[in-house]
Amino acid sequence: MEPALSDAPRPGSTERTRLRRLPEKAVSDVDALRAVLDAGLVAHVAVVDASAQPFVLPCAYARDEERLLLHGSSASRLFRTLAAGAPTCVTVTLLDGLVLARSAFESSMNYRRVMVFGQCEVLDGEEKLAALERLSEHLLPGRWNDIRPPSKKEMAATMVLSLPLAECSVKVSAGPPEDAPEDLDRPVWAGVVPVAQAVGEPVRAPDMFLDIEIPAYVEEWRHGR
Amino acid sequence: MEPALSDAPRPGSTERTRLRRLPEKAVSDVDALRAVLDAGLVAHVAVVDASAQPFVLPCAYARDEERLLLHGSSASRLFRTLAAGAPTCVTVTLLDGLVLARSAFESSMNYRRVMVFGQCEVLDGEEKLAALERLSEHLLPGRWNDIRPPSKKEMAATMVLSLPLAECSVKVSAGPPEDAPEDLDRPVWAGVVPVAQAVGEPVRAPDMFLDIEIPAYVEEWRHGR
Repeated sequence: MEPALSDAPRPGSTERTRLRRLPEKAVSDVDALRAVLDAGLVAHVAVVDASAQPFVLPCAYARDEERLLLHGSSASRLFRTLAAGAPTCVTVTLLDGLVLARSAFESSMNYRRVMVFGQCEVLDGEEKLAALERLSEHLLPGRWNDIRPPSKKEMAATMVLSLPLAECSVKVSAGPPEDAPEDLDRPVWAGVVPVAQAVGEPVRAPDMFLDIEIPAYVEEWRHGR
Repeated sequence: MEPALSDAPRPGSTERTRLRRLPEKAVSDVDALRAVLDAGLVAHVAVVDASAQPFVLPCAYARDEERLLLHGSSASRLFRTLAAGAPTCVTVTLLDGLVLARSAFESSMNYRRVMVFGQCEVLDGEEKLAALERLSEHLLPGRWNDIRPPSKKEMAATMVLSLPLAECSVKVSAGPPEDAPEDLDRPVWAGVVPVAQAVGEPVRAPDMFLDIEIPAYVEEWRHGR
């Protein structure tokens, strides 16, 4: 299922970002794949130009069942390239921790990453609006009912793409450092320092002249993200 | 300086991930570029196969003056492809906040991102070891002197690459939502919800039989990251 390059031994691995392939279920481990996609906010989306130069851009995304949704400006060259059927790779990475081993070589990071390969399809009409709601509810859960929906003009200025979750790879690096036995008596602290995305104190818009409290859903993000 | 695709109007922009190009100093704004690269831990690195399929992999990295350093397994196909001179795009994205506008269209994210284009060079000898120290000190500041340096065998198993910061693009999206005047009286909270990477409580390795305290530098990460 997965294109050839990522069948390489530990593609993209480094001693700090060691990739441990889930035992032969890299593609089929649907639960791990969904968990990563549902926890992330930003994907890195690649296209290639005629001279084989890759371009990698960050994009907001959402998972909707067995597809990824992306939205962007109808004028964006990235989105026009994707809409034309260019092969893409969309990668979502969640950094979970810094792994402090006793040796430089075993020092690494714990993380989860999903790669999705394929070609995008342009969504229109009711499906496009439903996809925008899904994107909003993934990125800003609870918000959609509070905000003004897109006007006809705004809809025209927006492109929404769908990428099937058909060719995927999920990798998970987790757990404590794996030092060699001969390094264990080195007098240095070893373990994992967790890293996660945290939500801070909301900052009110300066043009908000109405006296409105911070919505309950925003308070929930602070505990859930 | 920047390859053609990213000269497009707002490449990769979406209404949620609006890119605001720094006024004609996208390449020359060295301070912004350094600030992003010095704050990030994971880059997304792309290569392209013979069928024009892009691959995007997360990699730890460090900035060393006017170049990026990457390290990986000598056996990794990504690293062997990069070492062979394949054109790459290395993108570092820092998500700074969720922008809660009154309309779906103006809802977005605040973030900073750097793209670096070019070809990598393989580092060897003393320069390779110095680069590994630089990588370690970027990712785990203060740690290098505590850990066992790489053995000859470990050095051979590791590839270190350098990518010049010659062709770069930096984009910054910041500030409050920019709602249209006619949306301002909509009775909904508007503003920015900050998002940042946070460091949690360190977890001791289960094989640590020595009684050693968490190093001061780890405590510093908890306040500085």
